[in-house]
Amino acid sequence: DRPLTLIAGPCQLESLDHARMIAGQMKEACAKYGAQYVFKASYDKANRTSLSGKRGLGVDEGLKVLQTIAKEFDVPVLTDVHTEAQCAVAAEAVDILQIPAFLCRQTDMLLAAGKTGKAVNIKKGQFLAPWDMANVVAKVESTGNKNILLTERGTSFGYNTLVADMRSLPQMAQGGYPVVMDATHSVQQPGGKGGSTGGQREFAPLMARAAVSLGIASVFIETHEDPDNAPSDGPNMIYLDQMPKLIESLMRFDALAKADPIRI
Amino acid sequence: DRPLTLIAGPCQLESLDHARMIAGQMKEACAKYGAQYVFKASYDKANRTSLSGKRGLGVDEGLKVLQTIAKEFDVPVLTDVHTEAQCAVAAEAVDILQIPAFLCRQTDMLLAAGKTGKAVNIKKGQFLAPWDMANVVAKVESTGNKNILLTERGTSFGYNTLVADMRSLPQMAQGGYPVVMDATHSVQQPGGKGGSTGGQREFAPLMARAAVSLGIASVFIETHEDPDNAPSDGPNMIYLDQMPKLIESLMRFDALAKADPIRI
Amino acid sequence: DRPLTLIAGPCQLESLDHARMIAGQMKEACAKYGAQYVFKASYDKANRTSLSGKRGLGVDEGLKVLQTIAKEFDVPVLTDVHTEAQCAVAAEAVDILQIPAFLCRQTDMLLAAGKTGKAVNIKKGQFLAPWDMANVVAKVESTGNKNILLTERGTSFGYNTLVADMRSLPQMAQGGYPVVMDATHSVQQPGGKGGSTGGQREFAPLMARAAVSLGIASVFIETHEDPDNAPSDGPNMIYLDQMPKLIESLMRFDALAKADPIRI
Amino acid sequence: DRPLTLIAGPCQLESLDHARMIAGQMKEACAKYGAQYVFKASYDKANRTSLSGKRGLGVDEGLKVLQTIAKEFDVPVLTDVHTEAQCAVAAEAVDILQIPAFLCRQTDMLLAAGKTGKAVNIKKGQFLAPWDMANVVAKVESTGNKNILLTERGTSFGYNTLVADMRSLPQMAQGGYPVVMDATHSVQQPGGKGGSTGGQREFAPLMARAAVSLGIASVFIETHEDPDNAPSDGPNMIYLDQMPKLIESLMRFDALAKADPIRI
Repeated sequence: DRPLTLIAGPCQLESLDHARMIAGQMKEACAKYGAQYVFKASYDKANRTSLSGKRGLGVDEGLKVLQTIAKEFDVPVLTDVHTEAQCAVAAEAVDILQIPAFLCRQTDMLLAAGKTGKAVNIKKGQFLAPWDMANVVAKVESTGNKNILLTERGTSFGYNTLVADMRSLPQMAQGGYPVVMDATHSVQQPGGKGGSTGGQREFAPLMARAAVSLGIASVFIETHEDPDNAPSDGPNMIYLDQMPKLIESLMRFDALAKADPIRI
Repeated sequence: DRPLTLIAGPCQLESLDHARMIAGQMKEACAKYGAQYVFKASYDKANRTSLSGKRGLGVDEGLKVLQTIAKEFDVPVLTDVHTEAQCAVAAEAVDILQIPAFLCRQTDMLLAAGKTGKAVNIKKGQFLAPWDMANVVAKVESTGNKNILLTERGTSFGYNTLVADMRSLPQMAQGGYPVVMDATHSVQQPGGKGGSTGGQREFAPLMARAAVSLGIASVFIETHEDPDNAPSDGPNMIYLDQMPKLIESLMRFDALAKADPIRI
Repeated sequence: DRPLTLIAGPCQLESLDHARMIAGQMKEACAKYGAQYVFKASYDKANRTSLSGKRGLGVDEGLKVLQTIAKEFDVPVLTDVHTEAQCAVAAEAVDILQIPAFLCRQTDMLLAAGKTGKAVNIKKGQFLAPWDMANVVAKVESTGNKNILLTERGTSFGYNTLVADMRSLPQMAQGGYPVVMDATHSVQQPGGKGGSTGGQREFAPLMARAAVSLGIASVFIETHEDPDNAPSDGPNMIYLDQMPKLIESLMRFDALAKADPIRI
Repeated sequence: DRPLTLIAGPCQLESLDHARMIAGQMKEACAKYGAQYVFKASYDKANRTSLSGKRGLGVDEGLKVLQTIAKEFDVPVLTDVHTEAQCAVAAEAVDILQIPAFLCRQTDMLLAAGKTGKAVNIKKGQFLAPWDMANVVAKVESTGNKNILLTERGTSFGYNTLVADMRSLPQMAQGGYPVVMDATHSVQQPGGKGGSTGGQREFAPLMARAAVSLGIASVFIETHEDPDNAPSDGPNMIYLDQMPKLIESLMRFDALAKADPIRI
């Protein structure tokens, strides 16, 4: 019933200045329209479609940038981890550890993330049913950590296509944890461009709005000032200059949804 | 940009009095909250999962009931046709002919429906991509009839399950025709109960709201005062006494969506 | 445990001479390698992707051609029906009435087909699970007709794609009726070419072989001397001159499979 | 064109004696029927559905058991790795490193596996199209290691279900590397039992036969003397005492398939 949280940022960290530019604009827009803001960026893209895909700043420099953003802008920061060992390291720099969808069943990493005591955002695997996330959640809960978020980012639907099932949001919410809609990854077309992943950027705002209308806790959006030249996820990221208007719009639907909750 | 139209009624006609009861309550609720209302019911269920499923009043008595409802309540009525020959017959009694999803590629029936000059609501086959509907539309358009509606009612997703892809709504809308979200059939579980089709009634209001938030023209909802004892589609129909509150809620989202259109 | 039956012919009837040419070559090849042969062709394509797709000779001329083929070549003939009324008419000309996949839940047509007393080959809808066919079968059985065949022709798998689930063959066989693998429609890409259906002809022999190795009763293959210029289903039909070698190969796998039955 | 290789063993290592019992029986059966044999077992199950699932002997003891099996029975051994660091360690003990399906896009692990110089068997992710494996292969090839195998183990098909697309085998083979059919994981029902994964053991022999009939290099089968009491994958493992007859049968289909190759 609290206002929507926006988790937003570039797909991967490019430089401190680039991160500042995006964090600054997003924080301002969120403040203007009453959204909570969490800065998101990856220090490493560990599962690019092809070997030639850029991977980012790396863990050392990346985490420094994230810490700087957190301090300078006084915002929580989220990043994704890729191995058990990275959990404790990243936890020193960020507020929310994110488990990538492909890795959401890797027990040791879930336990390591849980043990940091930080919030853990688990993306539902493209190969999992929403109700299967209860078993994933139990792995993190076993560490005593109940600061968990669950994210819908699309489910495999034939080859090279994902579909976002709106039922997934209330189904995952039944465990009592906040549910996040990842509006930009849900419109990916995995492998759709041969050597890289395609996407349907034009549908991302629509996915966000449909999900927000159901009263979810948070929306996750990757954004870039020039998506077509971004080092990753260009086809599905939203143009940075379109974000304020989108946030304004989503907050209207969020207010209506929170005032009129759907119970299932 | 006009207010939402609600297409609602029982899955199948049971009697004139039953139809009156539902039409009356729906018309009143729609009037109260500013929705357009179209009465929907089937005179025949021609493709029941099993032979023992009830099929309805039949074409003669059924069409009489529909005409009576249209006159008594001064509302447009919609019914589905199942053969080429039924199109002209049904067109004398109703305002909108509906092409069932399984039959949406049957050329002769589409042409016959188009030739009646009545509005034609085509349900997207569970086996079709949204963009494939352009070919279906062209069949009806070839008759000179451009009074067409397109309905999303879920797409096959593995066995015994449908998924409603929200992208389908704007994709089908690109042809310029009004798009309808069928909230109750989208949550069917075809064959899910062995000898009959299951459903997840609890998710139907959520499907309706998500779709309405995107600014569609109409929502289609089957409703019954006692779904568990209805002759068909019980598992996914919405309780009649819950409809006024749902309509009120949908109209709020509709107003917001129409004031803030998403362009793709 | 009997040798494989090959159901083969052009997708649609083009002329008597064309039908003769194909029936003659197929009968000869089947005789040479020990397969039973059934000639297949459609007199009407009632559900083409687009209106401009050719539909065939029509019912009157088409059925005459089929009767001529049956007599001249002394082979059983199969054709698909599209309405309840066509069942009795077609039954006078052919040995096997085929229910198209899209229409496999239309109760009246199933009953009409059953009542003819002819064999009824029901294609599993792309939207149905194999076990759902038990309800479909029961509709035909209710007429007293137990001369039924069940055909796998692919299941919806995302958009514009089908997948042939090999489990479907033994699952459908559990009812005791012969099971047919439709090797050429299983590799269709519905709507995959925009205004028409695409296909992956190169995979059809492979689908046939995998299915035959499981010990099925029959394989269904559409074939043409010049598929790329055929009036329908060109992208998935097999070249006529490749059929004898394919039949020879399939019969070897059939012999092995029948000698070594899989029990599930 | 060489005879089929059977990769078989228990899902997870239970003890040296248990591994000996299975390796011995499998080696004998493969020798009798002319198959190559590779012993397979996991030292750790790192992605169990739920936390309470048993994980196996662990890396130290597990690798010792695998080495003992390799020496005592003079057979190649295969095991799956779960982190970058495990690759070099496991490579000292086994002949083939296997990349789990969920992890098949993790670049660092693929590179680490490739750098060991050992053969690398990559399972196609349930979320990937067969042609997407070309990008995965290129990651391993970049290390100079071209000793690669590709395994089909089913693709997501709705919720809690996999489907094995037979087209995947020739499609993955186009890169020139040997293709393996994982007959027992293809019939898993992920999450299908709530807290654990279900399976359809009865269909595994059928999946193996259909794939072998297409002329693949290898079949992967998990087997256990008492699957229902095995610590993991019980619902889909094949009874050990049924394996000799299955191997005998598969070798017949393999001989036929290798003598009559399908070219696509």
